[in-house]
Amino acid sequence: MAYSRSHLRYLEDFAVGQKFGGAERVRVDAARIKSFASEFDPQPFHLDENAAKGSIFRGLAASGWHTAAMTMKLLVASELQPAGGIVGAGFEEFRWPTPVRPGDELRVESEVLEVRPSKSRPDIGVVKIRTTTYNQKNEAVQVNVGSLMVPRKP
Amino acid sequence: MAYSRSHLRYLEDFAVGQKFGGAERVRVDAARIKSFASEFDPQPFHLDENAAKGSIFRGLAASGWHTAAMTMKLLVASELQPAGGIVGAGFEEFRWPTPVRPGDELRVESEVLEVRPSKSRPDIGVVKIRTTTYNQKNEAVQVNVGSLMVPRKP
Repeated sequence: MAYSRSHLRYLEDFAVGQKFGGAERVRVDAARIKSFASEFDPQPFHLDENAAKGSIFRGLAASGWHTAAMTMKLLVASELQPAGGIVGAGFEEFRWPTPVRPGDELRVESEVLEVRPSKSRPDIGVVKIRTTTYNQKNEAVQVNVGSLMVPRKP
Repeated sequence: MAYSRSHLRYLEDFAVGQKFGGAERVRVDAARIKSFASEFDPQPFHLDENAAKGSIFRGLAASGWHTAAMTMKLLVASELQPAGGIVGAGFEEFRWPTPVRPGDELRVESEVLEVRPSKSRPDIGVVKIRTTTYNQKNEAVQVNVGSLMVPRKP
């Protein structure tokens, strides 16, 4: 848990163009790719090296939802730290440009695209953020643009 | 695994307005909400009932990525069955309108919004689908609009 009260950011602390990274890395291994897939995404290209060779992925690849979940872990541990936690209202873009492979080491970076008060709730606002997950070759494996609900300063 | 070769659908088998459901249900329990969160989304409102009471969720709620992963499990088992598997190119909309709670029973429904051949690859096409995950009260807990890559008939 990366909760450090002193670093919590309220709506007023966010500004367009800010970038947040994180020192944390997640290393992906074949066994967890397969066990995650067998619980949540049981398709041959996430379960078995040989079956994956003949698929569109041309080799074992992590489920996109596994990548999304690992990204969330990195984001929670990152410098972002909105007060009230990372609560996503939704995404307007979400894609996986490069497959995640066994042995990959992932890191995350986010950039603030927009900051605005909520129309309906005076106590919160919306921070629109692009979050990019990179592998060790600096290829983007996941890109999303989402809106976080962030409390205003009390 | 819900792979039945006889039901595999190629691009030519999809048409706008088709709906696909599934008999499968996933029951959500508090222990898995917490263990998923502790691996991937360690925030108080996904980990602890008491901490969750004071949060925006007003009670323990599943991580959105847990909901996304359970939805994928339901989708793989559903009637959708594209040839080549369910391979998402990306989403243009993705949101969680209602929190997922312990005891919820989830099901999935998808509707075809668009079918088109790929501009760059003659062997595949894109099927745009809205996927809605419902709880036992028929409240939508997740809605997304995404594009699947689907092979054309050989």
